[in-house]
Amino acid sequence: MKSSTLLNESQKRALASIFPGDAAVFTPEETFVYGTDASRRFAPPAAAVRPDSCEQVKELLAFAQAERIPILPRGRATNTVGDCVPVAGGIVVSTARLNRILEIDPDDFVAVVEPGVVTGDLQAAIAAQKLFYAPDPASVKFSTVGGNAATCAGGMRAVKYGVTRDHILGIEAVLPGGQVLTTGGRTHKNVVGLDLTRLFVGSEGTLGLFTKLTLKLLPLPQATATLAVAYPSIDAALAAAGDVFRAGILPVALEMLGQEAMKAVAAISAVPWPADAGAALFVRVDGSPEAVAADVALLERATADAGPVWTERAVTPEAEENLWELRRLLNPASFKAAPDKISDDVTVPRGALREAAAGIKAIGEEERVRILLFGHVGDGNLHVNIMHDAADADERARAQSARERILMLCLALRGTLSGEHGVGLSKLPFLDRQLDEGQREILRRVKAVFDPAGIMNPQKAY
Amino acid sequence: MKSSTLLNESQKRALASIFPGDAAVFTPEETFVYGTDASRRFAPPAAAVRPDSCEQVKELLAFAQAERIPILPRGRATNTVGDCVPVAGGIVVSTARLNRILEIDPDDFVAVVEPGVVTGDLQAAIAAQKLFYAPDPASVKFSTVGGNAATCAGGMRAVKYGVTRDHILGIEAVLPGGQVLTTGGRTHKNVVGLDLTRLFVGSEGTLGLFTKLTLKLLPLPQATATLAVAYPSIDAALAAAGDVFRAGILPVALEMLGQEAMKAVAAISAVPWPADAGAALFVRVDGSPEAVAADVALLERATADAGPVWTERAVTPEAEENLWELRRLLNPASFKAAPDKISDDVTVPRGALREAAAGIKAIGEEERVRILLFGHVGDGNLHVNIMHDAADADERARAQSARERILMLCLALRGTLSGEHGVGLSKLPFLDRQLDEGQREILRRVKAVFDPAGIMNPQKAY
Repeated sequence: MKSSTLLNESQKRALASIFPGDAAVFTPEETFVYGTDASRRFAPPAAAVRPDSCEQVKELLAFAQAERIPILPRGRATNTVGDCVPVAGGIVVSTARLNRILEIDPDDFVAVVEPGVVTGDLQAAIAAQKLFYAPDPASVKFSTVGGNAATCAGGMRAVKYGVTRDHILGIEAVLPGGQVLTTGGRTHKNVVGLDLTRLFVGSEGTLGLFTKLTLKLLPLPQATATLAVAYPSIDAALAAAGDVFRAGILPVALEMLGQEAMKAVAAISAVPWPADAGAALFVRVDGSPEAVAADVALLERATADAGPVWTERAVTPEAEENLWELRRLLNPASFKAAPDKISDDVTVPRGALREAAAGIKAIGEEERVRILLFGHVGDGNLHVNIMHDAADADERARAQSARERILMLCLALRGTLSGEHGVGLSKLPFLDRQLDEGQREILRRVKAVFDPAGIMNPQKAY
Repeated sequence: MKSSTLLNESQKRALASIFPGDAAVFTPEETFVYGTDASRRFAPPAAAVRPDSCEQVKELLAFAQAERIPILPRGRATNTVGDCVPVAGGIVVSTARLNRILEIDPDDFVAVVEPGVVTGDLQAAIAAQKLFYAPDPASVKFSTVGGNAATCAGGMRAVKYGVTRDHILGIEAVLPGGQVLTTGGRTHKNVVGLDLTRLFVGSEGTLGLFTKLTLKLLPLPQATATLAVAYPSIDAALAAAGDVFRAGILPVALEMLGQEAMKAVAAISAVPWPADAGAALFVRVDGSPEAVAADVALLERATADAGPVWTERAVTPEAEENLWELRRLLNPASFKAAPDKISDDVTVPRGALREAAAGIKAIGEEERVRILLFGHVGDGNLHVNIMHDAADADERARAQSARERILMLCLALRGTLSGEHGVGLSKLPFLDRQLDEGQREILRRVKAVFDPAGIMNPQKAY
């Protein structure tokens, strides 16, 4: 354990007085679970606390700033790039008890929530009032609104509705030292002051600790429908994806599953597509029932040119759910496909998808690793799961080599290292291939405005 | 003329060597037009330059930083809050020659442009490729993409498509000293680094000078239609606006015209609505032809409960254009309605619109000033034109008093001073009613990261 991860007795007493009872834990046994996240990395925290008020967060950040102790914000730790891992030690701050839905206002089309609210729970509460909160990361049933905001989470509906940043109107955050900063507001439009709201969204916990978020709501779409179409190859599926946009349709979701991904799902579930299908598209549309019916017909025409080998149209909620459940099985399926995976979320310009997919396939073959390729192709966002056995040193090295080559390929295609997961720890070694030193220096200086001593989630993101 | 507006001979020579020929002007006669904008304020610049390359902008900003000379970015100066007025003197930088459309890519759904491109020209070029750039400020035929980005311009289509910030993927900007900073990229999703792109959008020229913008394009909607409905009162019209959202419709545009605004238009044009109508809604929808037909039928039902006195449905481009031309006449009409106007763009939570409208009417009556009220009510964004004769001291004082009371009313309703125009000079005196000193200090420190000497559009915005 590095010295920075330790708290002295006086620091422990101070922390325990801010967080009485079970709201603070210190022993390695108790803090162990706070040392990791969905990246499967681990580092031991010095303590973990569970505030249940903004007041406690203020006291905590005044204390941590004075003592120069790292602060690690933590929602449900579904982060895949290590943002919740306390690599510099310090205090993990769980938002588990900051989990109140403070308001859902059907006239203002606004919700106000604490950061620890699980996004799926919020969506259900909102839908009950015929309202709609659009962001839907794959982790929606487990991840929190605060965590989604910290990473600017994407998800399937981003094609039509945008990502988390497009649905956050205002933020209350506590800065190191204890200053409470509110940004934005309650209105759907607001151009007063620099846009600090979006600066905080996607900041990966490096600027401050969210205590409240004001969200933009939309009317709940009256109907949705999904068309699933399989093709002989990824190239044909991606050509069809291009045809969808060329037909003038802006779908809610436009997902692609490559052959290996389809096989992984088929290994754990009955599937409706032909066993030799090379790729599939799942396309969802929403709107009035008439609009949805018309769009599905148009989708069927638009996806026909590329030569589908299987088509299924789902126009009832049950039929849609059956299709999307197959898409959702991809994550559990991937865990069964090999002992270990490297999971990336590279994103390329939409027109470069076919070249990216072909390149990734070639790299997988050359490095002799199995790659599950799927993703939000409507946004150019590819999920690349490099399956391997990390216990095999040679295989591990080939997987790492494949990863680096894929990241560099996507940058060469004018893409980005991350479309929705963030940089965290996992992509930090490659960051200088995307951002130059001048850009990174600016990022560090912007951070220093909010966090001059560098205690917020140190050694991450940029 | 303040001393800061003057350049010495050596500075003039340096500037002329960066900007040979007619690319720089220095005399009061030549620079006069660069001293004002749509706010009708004026201050004399020391010089005006028209770069036609990023290289020239770099040299300029290295020179200006070294000499501590203010830099005033200027598109077409349609800004209504004084952002283009050189109150601290300095060099006005016109983007008139940085006006190339560098790329429209129908596969990537991306356009790359220089900041001086007129937004309407770009939209036409994009539509010719069946693509769509959604932001459409009222000034679209005159204003530039760079100016729209600097103010995060809104416009009518924001209800469904969001504002300018939601459609800018990346920016190239030159900072004081000459550093070229690129933010974001070419992909529709990107979470690498803090979101500097949105920090620059809406920064009102206070951080750097844009030299290139990468824009997100969408498929061109296949069809649109508009329903115009008049009501006996603003209150009834706003109740109907609420009913539109409750019916589950997310319109492209949802505009309201109050009675005085309708009368002002009727004074310069034939109008189709009854002379005694108290307010009107203009509602536009888009999508497939079937979706549009269904949505218009749904709109007619949703807007019926509030008791319309007139309804017109426009389903052809010509019929739609005739309706929207009436809405567009509001601006010229307002100039004929009185010698002077104070024009604000307050925004309130959507559910507070009826209270805001009633309060604004009462203030107008108490202060005995005619107020044209209209706006993007789908976003809670009200345009308040306080008509008066500024040559009449008493009337001017009453107009100013009405203005301040309206701004404070909207803040009391949890609104914002500006939904789309920005703060500029015009709202700066009221800014401390919305942002506290702690917030403003943070804004100034963020600015200092990019502009440590404070040469970019000084004395504006925050």
